[in-house]
Amino acid sequence: MRLQLRTWPEVEDYLKNSAGIIIPIGSTEQHGPTGFIGTDALCPELVATEIGQRQNVMVAPTLSIGMAQHHLGFSGSITLRPTTLISVVCDVVNSLRRHGFNRFFFLNGHGGNIATCEAAFSEIYAESSLGIAGQNQPSVRCHLENWWNSEAIKEISKREYGDAEGSHATPSEVSLTYFGYPEDGARVKRDELTPPVAPGGPIYDATDFRRRFADGRMGSDPTLSTPEVGQELFEASVRSVGQAYENFITAE
Amino acid sequence: MRLQLRTWPEVEDYLKNSAGIIIPIGSTEQHGPTGFIGTDALCPELVATEIGQRQNVMVAPTLSIGMAQHHLGFSGSITLRPTTLISVVCDVVNSLRRHGFNRFFFLNGHGGNIATCEAAFSEIYAESSLGIAGQNQPSVRCHLENWWNSEAIKEISKREYGDAEGSHATPSEVSLTYFGYPEDGARVKRDELTPPVAPGGPIYDATDFRRRFADGRMGSDPTLSTPEVGQELFEASVRSVGQAYENFITAE
Amino acid sequence: MRLQLRTWPEVEDYLKNSAGIIIPIGSTEQHGPTGFIGTDALCPELVATEIGQRQNVMVAPTLSIGMAQHHLGFSGSITLRPTTLISVVCDVVNSLRRHGFNRFFFLNGHGGNIATCEAAFSEIYAESSLGIAGQNQPSVRCHLENWWNSEAIKEISKREYGDAEGSHATPSEVSLTYFGYPEDGARVKRDELTPPVAPGGPIYDATDFRRRFADGRMGSDPTLSTPEVGQELFEASVRSVGQAYENFITAE
Amino acid sequence: MRLQLRTWPEVEDYLKNSAGIIIPIGSTEQHGPTGFIGTDALCPELVATEIGQRQNVMVAPTLSIGMAQHHLGFSGSITLRPTTLISVVCDVVNSLRRHGFNRFFFLNGHGGNIATCEAAFSEIYAESSLGIAGQNQPSVRCHLENWWNSEAIKEISKREYGDAEGSHATPSEVSLTYFGYPEDGARVKRDELTPPVAPGGPIYDATDFRRRFADGRMGSDPTLSTPEVGQELFEASVRSVGQAYENFITAE
Amino acid sequence: MRLQLRTWPEVEDYLKNSAGIIIPIGSTEQHGPTGFIGTDALCPELVATEIGQRQNVMVAPTLSIGMAQHHLGFSGSITLRPTTLISVVCDVVNSLRRHGFNRFFFLNGHGGNIATCEAAFSEIYAESSLGIAGQNQPSVRCHLENWWNSEAIKEISKREYGDAEGSHATPSEVSLTYFGYPEDGARVKRDELTPPVAPGGPIYDATDFRRRFADGRMGSDPTLSTPEVGQELFEASVRSVGQAYENFITAE
Amino acid sequence: MRLQLRTWPEVEDYLKNSAGIIIPIGSTEQHGPTGFIGTDALCPELVATEIGQRQNVMVAPTLSIGMAQHHLGFSGSITLRPTTLISVVCDVVNSLRRHGFNRFFFLNGHGGNIATCEAAFSEIYAESSLGIAGQNQPSVRCHLENWWNSEAIKEISKREYGDAEGSHATPSEVSLTYFGYPEDGARVKRDELTPPVAPGGPIYDATDFRRRFADGRMGSDPTLSTPEVGQELFEASVRSVGQAYENFITAE
Ligand code: NI
Ligand code: NI
Ligand code: NI
Ligand code: NI
Ligand code: NI
Ligand code: NI
Repeated sequence: MRLQLRTWPEVEDYLKNSAGIIIPIGSTEQHGPTGFIGTDALCPELVATEIGQRQNVMVAPTLSIGMAQHHLGFSGSITLRPTTLISVVCDVVNSLRRHGFNRFFFLNGHGGNIATCEAAFSEIYAESSLGIAGQNQPSVRCHLENWWNSEAIKEISKREYGDAEGSHATPSEVSLTYFGYPEDGARVKRDELTPPVAPGGPIYDATDFRRRFADGRMGSDPTLSTPEVGQELFEASVRSVGQAYENFITAE
Repeated sequence: MRLQLRTWPEVEDYLKNSAGIIIPIGSTEQHGPTGFIGTDALCPELVATEIGQRQNVMVAPTLSIGMAQHHLGFSGSITLRPTTLISVVCDVVNSLRRHGFNRFFFLNGHGGNIATCEAAFSEIYAESSLGIAGQNQPSVRCHLENWWNSEAIKEISKREYGDAEGSHATPSEVSLTYFGYPEDGARVKRDELTPPVAPGGPIYDATDFRRRFADGRMGSDPTLSTPEVGQELFEASVRSVGQAYENFITAE
Repeated sequence: MRLQLRTWPEVEDYLKNSAGIIIPIGSTEQHGPTGFIGTDALCPELVATEIGQRQNVMVAPTLSIGMAQHHLGFSGSITLRPTTLISVVCDVVNSLRRHGFNRFFFLNGHGGNIATCEAAFSEIYAESSLGIAGQNQPSVRCHLENWWNSEAIKEISKREYGDAEGSHATPSEVSLTYFGYPEDGARVKRDELTPPVAPGGPIYDATDFRRRFADGRMGSDPTLSTPEVGQELFEASVRSVGQAYENFITAE
Repeated sequence: MRLQLRTWPEVEDYLKNSAGIIIPIGSTEQHGPTGFIGTDALCPELVATEIGQRQNVMVAPTLSIGMAQHHLGFSGSITLRPTTLISVVCDVVNSLRRHGFNRFFFLNGHGGNIATCEAAFSEIYAESSLGIAGQNQPSVRCHLENWWNSEAIKEISKREYGDAEGSHATPSEVSLTYFGYPEDGARVKRDELTPPVAPGGPIYDATDFRRRFADGRMGSDPTLSTPEVGQELFEASVRSVGQAYENFITAE
Repeated sequence: MRLQLRTWPEVEDYLKNSAGIIIPIGSTEQHGPTGFIGTDALCPELVATEIGQRQNVMVAPTLSIGMAQHHLGFSGSITLRPTTLISVVCDVVNSLRRHGFNRFFFLNGHGGNIATCEAAFSEIYAESSLGIAGQNQPSVRCHLENWWNSEAIKEISKREYGDAEGSHATPSEVSLTYFGYPEDGARVKRDELTPPVAPGGPIYDATDFRRRFADGRMGSDPTLSTPEVGQELFEASVRSVGQAYENFITAE
Repeated sequence: MRLQLRTWPEVEDYLKNSAGIIIPIGSTEQHGPTGFIGTDALCPELVATEIGQRQNVMVAPTLSIGMAQHHLGFSGSITLRPTTLISVVCDVVNSLRRHGFNRFFFLNGHGGNIATCEAAFSEIYAESSLGIAGQNQPSVRCHLENWWNSEAIKEISKREYGDAEGSHATPSEVSLTYFGYPEDGARVKRDELTPPVAPGGPIYDATDFRRRFADGRMGSDPTLSTPEVGQELFEASVRSVGQAYENFITAE
């Protein structure tokens, strides 16, 4: 159930049975020489859309642009400043709470979003806690879940890629996008990269990042990506995230 | 050429030949009893994607949530406050200008975005004009184009719908989404609406809006929508917007 | 009835009969070699003051500084950033709504203010629509009217100036200020300009603006300005804007 | 030399000889039963205009709305929040510094503006001190002067009004406005007030203020105001502020 | 009673008898060649802690970083921009008002904080006055008191230091810190300074400040500082500030 | 080396050898019936001060107030909104980077600060990455370290407290404060709590938090706290954090 493809009376009906919604949130940033710039948005979008269908959950439009300042040294990367992303998350939640939604499940595709999203949730709660939230605004709960956040997924990644998984432009996330967008995946040239497995290291600003990670990868070899592994990851994520959503919705 | 499905080296190549990009911007808001909540985002996304393919233009991910405060009386509608949307537009432009993009063509699907987007452009220019923009930030130009903004489109709308076109939840925009998403269009119940053509009027806050426009329509009868008219509008928009983009890019 | 020249008990009396107020809003920006820097503030101030007298309407002090970033290449021009102007408009409306004012009629003299003012109105409405407005804040309506926005005025401009009217530093607006400030108008040197009618074109930042429009004019020949035409425009504007105000106040 | 009534070439000429400007700043707030709501803006405007003429100083348009939150319990009062006023002052200074102005003399009419204006000056300086000001922004100096801030003026007030001068809606400031606007002064009813001299006390929020100061006066009896004393104050202020401006401009 | 060293049930008990709290606020900035960078925070902290003990008053943790942009030319100085400091003060007050605190006594150690703190108080009041404060937020009063703000203290300073007191890095404030931190005071080298008494002058940005005041002092000779005078000042401040707190708490 | 107790020439000397600084950051929030409200600020302050002495590292004044919105249901708790805390961190870093500091080691005492601090670091980096940082601002690195973040500490906690350690108002952190402030620790009544070990659970707003955690503890039994264990934890933290600081400073 994509919110974008529903009418408002259909949403009104939905709210009679559920106050929960999944909001995919990603990023638009370089993913190495072979990964799509949209990887981090496309992954949670794919997973959320499938969960929406299987479990009759409303899925909001994907917040495709996240906090990716460190990638700005590579063409095509876009960032929201953390303060901007906080405002976006606050406005989205405050809009939907007016209609009765009160369980906000953000399905995330980008590690760089986590801190800012948690800060945004606190900004929303702080308005209630400080007594400056609108009087008609019901209490809400927000939760951030990463699509890769289950043992099942980590096992697949480890089995398939071992030390070549790395932490950015990983073969796992790239595989998932090749599964979702096979034609585009087939277009990408996958020459051998040098070194085959990229170095790791800390993250500071964009200039420092490009100096450390010359082609954008962090600790990974994404040339190992395949649509087949992507499908396996997809299925695992749909199952585990779907369960996490249910747990969130039904928690006391 | 969807930015999301390109790698950063591909973007770097693109920038050797062009500094222009199309950024679809829409809204997530009620569109009457028969229109999709995502109408205003889906329409420019459909058109932009096609132009991207035909004209080899880079297309950014759609900014799906716009300024729609007046629709918050209807379930599922989401708004960014104008100041939030200004921050988003500034960050997106400032990110891409770092890489060499300097012609930003926002393809818009929502009348309520126009004023805020123009204000955002002025905010960006003001930083340069006041001398507070970053020193490495090249001069940029931003342009907002509505997908329906050509004589050819207005003629189709007038011929097909006449006085039933209205100004919100119009049969034209709904037709375009039915063309783009035929299965979802087929799902929507299209009972006769009362009155067949909705009233018009000014726009203030959400409570006032719902009082004036009981089912969300403004001056329209969207039950007249068909995928066939949608396709005709799609073709007309791709042509006229495509030309407008070329004009923008090549202007002195 | 200038608010500045009234006492608070007089305002309290006024509010027994009316909840409307006119707020002139202008700009402080170059108006070519022969136009006053205050043109866009002085015009709505002149018109609003007269309407205030004739129709017993409260007139707020003029917001003399607007959004004029593109004029900063010319000495004496001042801009508020759009986000600053939004804050100003919000604070003014929120102050007066506490006393019972709820119909805010902004009489505008500057095209560059329109988008930002509309965004500001949406920011105000959004606080209500999102449920974050103060609990004692009644519903309000804001309207922006340009002083030149009637057929009668356009006819005078066309008859007197035709293609030399242009869009910035127009002979019409300059005439109106010469009518209002005849001594200062007489002081200004009106040597022939080169070219007599300035070029037109789009607006980006201040550097681009100065490059396109070397002496500040856009498409106009303001040396044609006279106090006599100014008076005619003044009368026409007082009548048409006065009527627009009544329509706004009495609308359902 | 009112900036509003000058052309940009005239300002360019002025800047060849001076980098200084006077910016009147006031407030729009109740001034007791007999004082104009615009008192605090009209007083510095009157004084600044005269100094501009006598000393050939450029005078910016008056910032008529200041920080007056405590007066919001009385109809017609308008406030900018301190953070808004800071943004306004920053934008005005940053605009004019681009043209070469670097000595900003704010002539103030409202005690409630002082703290916020000083904070705004620090905000401007902080951008330079932190190294985040634009690279083309020259060093500037800002100064706030109250129009009543000389021994000569205090002597007149003391001689004429003694203990009835008070601190808000003073007979001195009201006299100055009656001198400037004699017709409106004559209109105001000046019935005896109860008590003749209002109480004093601290300032907190608007509700507390109205509770303490039932008719808006603080420690004053403004029924003693006359245009004649107003004229005397006007002359004294023009002389002393004019001298203060010269001192500011010529200081090392 | 340091808030930091109390448990929440102890604070709850405290609130049964008092709604007042002392909040020390200082700065972290150069204090000449012999003064501690923390001088302006340490002084009010010392005084407040003692008052807290003697008079059973709750004392919040010191806000050690204030508005000190003009000192940034000297190593170790830290500033909050005025707008940041306003946010901090607002959040602190809004947090504590939720628990029943409603009399906020800021004990200040830095002249540069005064304007911004007063602006912050107005920002807090403005939210109430504009009707945008949270509905559960009780009315509050804020007061700023400088620790040196009594006749008794001024007499000591005058008697001990006369014209060498100056206005920044004064021997009085330095003495107070030597009393509080004798070991660190003994460490500081107190070579004769040149000139012995520093010049005075106005304050603009950090570059200008360093040009005027080469070693950071303003009008003072802090080599005269002694722990003994510091103790005398401490006692005088504890007495006078303690009384000022009582007056504030018990005022109508 | 406490920055507060140094002079600016001493800081200038320090910068000849090191560009690193430790900034303790904590919170002011309830810590159950037996824990100090300042626990999260006092712990990193104690550890940082000792490291400063042992390793000759400059230690900034403690940022005592953090992001603690969820604790506002308990008297004495204070929060900064996340956006405020971001501004504070940005200003502190931007101030010190002017003097040559470029390695910022935040020693943290509060889990609730982590996300917001990481977002603040990204805000700082984003200004560089977007090209909007001041031109004189050198590249910087920020790092957040929790004082309890080593295996040695976790082993002590596990050995001493096992399942009674919990996640808020833990016996470990309370022990550390009892070690640092033994007199105040002795004052606190340590009646048996009910239940002895508090429940765990997720964190949303303050009302929800108080409902879940009736006396403020999360999963802990802080009555087990002793100064002796505190000392052991102190030593372990000084060693491990001291090492982490060295690693950070010397990293490539
Ligand atoms: Ni990724
Ligand atoms: Ni639409
Ligand atoms: Ni104009
Ligand atoms: Ni006044
Ligand atoms: Ni000091
Ligand atoms: Ni803790």
